[in-house]
Amino acid sequence: MRTLRVIGIGAGNPEHVTVQAIRALNTVDVVFVLDKGSEKASLVALRHEICQRYITERPYRFVEARDPERDRNPADYGATVEAWHAARAVLYEAMIAGELGPGQCGAFLVWGDPALYDSTLRIIERIVARGRVPFTYDVIPGISSVQALAASHRIALNRIGAPVHITTGRQIADGLPPGADTTVVMLDGHPRFDHLDPDLTIYWGAYLGTPDEIVLSGRLGTIADTIGRTRAEARARHGWIMDTYLLRVPGEG
Amino acid sequence: MRTLRVIGIGAGNPEHVTVQAIRALNTVDVVFVLDKGSEKASLVALRHEICQRYITERPYRFVEARDPERDRNPADYGATVEAWHAARAVLYEAMIAGELGPGQCGAFLVWGDPALYDSTLRIIERIVARGRVPFTYDVIPGISSVQALAASHRIALNRIGAPVHITTGRQIADGLPPGADTTVVMLDGHPRFDHLDPDLTIYWGAYLGTPDEIVLSGRLGTIADTIGRTRAEARARHGWIMDTYLLRVPGEG
Ligand SMILES: C[S@@+](CC[C@H](N)C(=O)[O-])C[C@H]1O[C@@H](n2cnc3c(N)ncnc32)[C@H](O)[C@@H]1O
Ligand SMILES: C[S@@+](CC[C@H](N)C(=O)[O-])C[C@H]1O[C@@H](n2cnc3c(N)ncnc32)[C@H](O)[C@@H]1O
Repeated sequence: MRTLRVIGIGAGNPEHVTVQAIRALNTVDVVFVLDKGSEKASLVALRHEICQRYITERPYRFVEARDPERDRNPADYGATVEAWHAARAVLYEAMIAGELGPGQCGAFLVWGDPALYDSTLRIIERIVARGRVPFTYDVIPGISSVQALAASHRIALNRIGAPVHITTGRQIADGLPPGADTTVVMLDGHPRFDHLDPDLTIYWGAYLGTPDEIVLSGRLGTIADTIGRTRAEARARHGWIMDTYLLRVPGEG
Repeated sequence: MRTLRVIGIGAGNPEHVTVQAIRALNTVDVVFVLDKGSEKASLVALRHEICQRYITERPYRFVEARDPERDRNPADYGATVEAWHAARAVLYEAMIAGELGPGQCGAFLVWGDPALYDSTLRIIERIVARGRVPFTYDVIPGISSVQALAASHRIALNRIGAPVHITTGRQIADGLPPGADTTVVMLDGHPRFDHLDPDLTIYWGAYLGTPDEIVLSGRLGTIADTIGRTRAEARARHGWIMDTYLLRVPGEG
């Protein structure tokens, strides 16, 4: 029987890695790395660094593949994601069948936590459903960018006893959900704040956990322009950006 | 200047601890442990185990204090929590002033992630606002019970591109928030499911990350009784329980 391990590696700081993840890494024969194109080269580099630093007990090898191309601004979001997942399932299945011998163990290193806006688990479920390559698998949680954001700002995500809503830029294009107390926004390629209440408090963070980390916070109406400028500048300098922000309605607690 | 470090230790598995947390623990002179009463003795035990196992570079000492008593089912929830936080701020301030010499470093080990339904950061803000004992502090994120739940069930928290709502038992006493796709419920002392749509899918977990971990999942209407019985039994056997669950509306993705 082959084994797969889906390992959360944290959101940018190699020291986000847990002892559980290190132990799992040291059981692995093959590390699968999906390259998402040159702009994300530093994300691939972090995976290499983590393996070099933490896999000390046995030899392992890297298998790299190019992720299928994906339309980032499709007309039909659902259908496009569906097709992209299907293509990835075929690719991953071939990698598992071709690169893992019987009894061997392979790892997928997942950015942040595998449970948050990551498709690896869905793809693995698809391969299981196809039923062509048998394997068992487990999941190791990792520090997510949401937690890195809160830690850097030294804040709780929730107000006392109140809920936290984690969502995407796409979902809040028309405004925050009604009654939202705290909203965390990920995957927002074009953050705009002009349609939101200027009295919200924003906690923004980019490249969290990395040496390039930038955090800004304050009253949204006051700081939105600074965030916009800082973001555009950083993005131009690095060639890419990863950012997350938390919005909180005014009030106590 | 004194230093405080608020360190997330994960949700029950000593191997949830990150390399960043281990490094922080090894800078510490004093570990503050707040005892919440005998029923939670095993939570205190995990903190001791973590320090014993991971603090290898320098001597440190434990300072234990008894947390102020708190009414768990108060008539006025807000005022009670407020008074309890005020009492804890005074207690923590005295511990910091009395136990940490100038230039020394103290740690608060926080269950799970310090950002999720934990009061340590608010208490520290209060001490800062009181301005009697100067110190600097930082926060190290930890694996939360929400992530441990998702990992054990090998699921993503979110549906594709959809939001995740994290909330408390108290907040969903009258039903799920309108339009909720995925709801994660924490701090539910008396889970009842009879007022919820029986076609929801539930992923439930207790004592996550510990050797006593129990997980159950399925259609809510079908499995609610089993969860209720399992929970009551486990709670009677251990004398206490910690559980979390995720509810998802029926559908694809
Ligand atoms: C595809 S999702 C993956 C999330 C990841 N699984 C996690 O747990 O953080 C990518 C989004 O996560 C956020 N993100 C990930 N890493 C980040 C970082 N180091 N700094 C800021 N945001 C980050 C950004 O919002 C980005 O658009
Ligand atoms: C005061 S909150 C603290 C949450 C913690 N900061 C975290 O990040 O998980 C306590 C609640 O967390 C959940 N919880 C914490 N540890 C758990 C575990 N090991 N298994 C199941 N639920 C847990 C339960 O819902 C419990 O009522």
